[in-house]
This record gives sequence, C-alpha cells and structure tokens, in this order.
Amino acid sequence: MLTVFGLDGIGEITAGDDLGAIIAKVAAGHLENGDILLVTSKIVSKAEGRILRAADREQAITDETVRVVARRDYPGGVTRIVENRLGLVMAAAGVDASNTPDGTILLLPLDPDRSARQLRTALREWLGVEVGVIITDTVGRPWREGQTDIAIGAAGIRVVDDLRGQTDASGRLLMVTAAAVADELAAAGDLVKGKTSGRPVAVARGMAHFVTEEDGPGARALVRNAERDMFRLGSDEAFAAGFAAGRAAGAAAE
Amino acid sequence: MLTVFGLDGIGEITAGDDLGAIIAKVAAGHLENGDILLVTSKIVSKAEGRILRAADREQAITDETVRVVARRDYPGGVTRIVENRLGLVMAAAGVDASNTPDGTILLLPLDPDRSARQLRTALREWLGVEVGVIITDTVGRPWREGQTDIAIGAAGIRVVDDLRGQTDASGRLLMVTAAAVADELAAAGDLVKGKTSGRPVAVARGMAHFVTEEDGPGARALVRNAERDMFRLGSDEAFAAGFAAGRAAGAAAE
Repeated sequence: MLTVFGLDGIGEITAGDDLGAIIAKVAAGHLENGDILLVTSKIVSKAEGRILRAADREQAITDETVRVVARRDYPGGVTRIVENRLGLVMAAAGVDASNTPDGTILLLPLDPDRSARQLRTALREWLGVEVGVIITDTVGRPWREGQTDIAIGAAGIRVVDDLRGQTDASGRLLMVTAAAVADELAAAGDLVKGKTSGRPVAVARGMAHFVTEEDGPGARALVRNAERDMFRLGSDEAFAAGFAAGRAAGAAAE
Repeated sequence: MLTVFGLDGIGEITAGDDLGAIIAKVAAGHLENGDILLVTSKIVSKAEGRILRAADREQAITDETVRVVARRDYPGGVTRIVENRLGLVMAAAGVDASNTPDGTILLLPLDPDRSARQLRTALREWLGVEVGVIITDTVGRPWREGQTDIAIGAAGIRVVDDLRGQTDASGRLLMVTAAAVADELAAAGDLVKGKTSGRPVAVARGMAHFVTEEDGPGARALVRNAERDMFRLGSDEAFAAGFAAGRAAGAAAE
C-alpha cells in the first residue's frame, strides 16, 4: 500500500534558510525509516537564494539554456522549450514566476541531486531516520494536455525500477519495462501538495523497497541523452533545418 | 491524504469475462464512495477479446495506426512511434506482447472511455458505490528514461485540474497550471500494481474531490491535438520532410 500525505507548517522560505532544519522540525514524529520525502523545488530554490528580478526573466532563460529545442512566437512574447543545464527539457528552462515574491522569478536549484543529498543527510542527523528524498518540479509534456510533476533531484532512491530480464506473471521475459519510479512518486506527491495549498512537502510511505542505502546517481539518471532521443528537436525546427540543408544540397547539385 | 492499495484475487481474464462483475466481487467491502479505481488496460483488452496471433503483430500495429510520428530501424526490426486511433502517441501503437498467452498479442480496448463508463456502472449496480474509474497503460516519454502509466480511459473523474484563473498562496494568478490528475493517479497506481505482481487493479482513496457525478469527457480530453503539438513529428522525420521540400524549392528557384 502507498500512502502520501502532506506536511503542514513549513511557512515562507527565504534565502539562507536552513531547509533541512525547517523540514526536520515539521516532520518530527511523522517520518519513518523507508519513507520518501517529496519536496517542491521552489522552496529549495528559495532557500538557496536562486532568485532574480522579474525584469531579467528572458536573460535568465537564455542563461539557463544549453540548447533550444523548440520555440513558438505569439503576440507579445515567445515560448521557448529548451534543454537546460540540468539536461531537463522544459518550457522557459524551468524559470518560474508563480508563487514567488512580487517582481521576482526563481531559477531551479543549482544542483537538485546535491540538494536532495543534503536534505537526506539533514533528516538523518536531526531525526535519525533513513529516508529517500525527491525534489520535484512541474512540466508540460508532448502529446498530452496538462502538466505532471517529475523528479529533478533525488537521493537514496532507485529512480528507475529496471525490470528488463525479469519475467511477468506468465513467466515471459519483460522486454522493455523500466518504470520511472521517481517520476511516478513525484506525480503522486503533486496530488497531495497541489499548487494552491502552500504545502510544498509531502511524504510517501509504503515504498521502502525503492529506498537505497547509498545516495545513488540521483534524478540525473532519468534524463535521456539527446542524441538517443527521437524528439530531441521540435518538429518545426527540424523541418526548417532540413529545408535549409535540402535547399543547399539542391543548389550544390545544379 | 492519498492512499493507493491493490485488489487481490482477480485471476486470469479471458475473452467474454464480465469484468465488472469480477472486479465487483474482489472489491466488495473494499470500495467506498469517492474512491477511484485504477484498472490496467490489459485485462480490459482480454475481457473484450482484443487478442490476435503474435504472427500478425506488424499488421496489427499498422491497422491501429492513424499517423506515423517517428520510426527507427535496428537490426532485425523497427520501432514505430505512432498516433493510434485513440489519439495516443505510443510505441507499437500500444499493441502489447507481454503478460499475454504464448503466441498472442493484445490490442488496446476499442474505446477505453466507454470501458471505464461500463465498469463504473457495474460497480454502482453491484456494490452501490459512486467511484471514478481510470483505465491505465504504460508509455515511454520523450526526454526521460523509463516508462510511466497514463490514463487512456476514464469515467466519473475530472481528468485535468484546471487552475488557470485561480491564485497561488501569495494571491498571484496561476498562468499555465492545469494538472493532469488522471495521469498522476495512473502513475501512483503503477507503484502499487507493478508489472510483475499479477495485480492489475488498484484503488486510490482520498481524492474524492476529483470524482464527478457525470461520467464526463473521459481520458480523451488528455490527448493534445497534433496540430497544436510542437512535437507532432519525430526530429529525423521532420528534418527529412524539410530536406525534400527544400530540395524541391531549390530546384524550382533555378
């Protein structure tokens, strides 16, 4: 059985706050060994001081961008889907302007896997519990309406449950099944945390079999290498690149 | 609080089985008003007799395909990512060869939203409970390793929690947030059902605020129209189409 519940009482987080101590305080008496803590990246960013003036938003997106994947212009602006320095493909590079103090924007944590490891260590030291930690963020997806939460940082958790080589109930080999456990946990957490509740931390219980002794590779292991990705570039962008190459090839052939 | 637990005792499903009656039997005493039933599409397909000979797999994929989105050839085969007749973009059109009787494959249910509505009605009639129903399937995703479960059918559930127009904790308007609730519930269910357990049905409790009186538009509402999708075509396929168009344009310009 999986149980997911929110932790109340975290309050507003500002730059320099000791997030591990703050979460430990509200989690005292509520956390057990084998629990998985689901932490909205927004409060990690705030504690780490990853805050900028809203006027600098476009420049911030550019700075966070490694590679533009797709863009769409509309009257008054542009949507950029980019691969950011964490390898995550996200609208606006993950730069966030909601639930931030007026006139400010938030960047993603500098290294969410490290942030997760630090929170894990803090909870061990404050509360004496061995838990997994996932840092979550909200993303859009190709082909589907609506957003879901995914894991952008993780520590002490098997982020992918690789079943390849195992057999199904009828003894047949499972060929391609590797469940993105950390993303599924992040999604479950979003159902409890919500976007309007001001409750940025939840606990998932009953999944101790995914909690590991070592911190592990983190959520970075969930990022697919762009070279292996059939959707590494937006359809319009790929068409335009092909068109230019075709035109040049046609001219050269003359 | 969200609780997700599996229902045991469903056993092997074969064509013609009354799935509503079978689920009602194992769910008796375990279901409450406001629960959401998460049903793996595989057993719906089996009950509906959506089974073919494995030898006919490639033809079956072709028959289920509305539009090829991307393909990749490898020694001994081809992976086709396609939009199927349900509007879902999936590898092999969702045609499944795992957890099926030897020498057979399974097609997706003919109309998973209808299947969900029928199960909902059956549970109301057998057990007198008002629940939501989600039919789930497992999919790969661009940019991310590992698969997650999504909702391919739904009844009696608000599949997207549209927060646009609402305000966040600091009173600021939420601009682009619409949570794909049914997909997040499907993901949570996968954590409990697993792929090797032979436990194809789970119950999500604590989310009654997403359960609706009417059956609603179903999971079809989670399908984004391809014309609005920045990733409606694979990068290689879009490049090739652009190249051909560019070459022709270059030739015409000479």
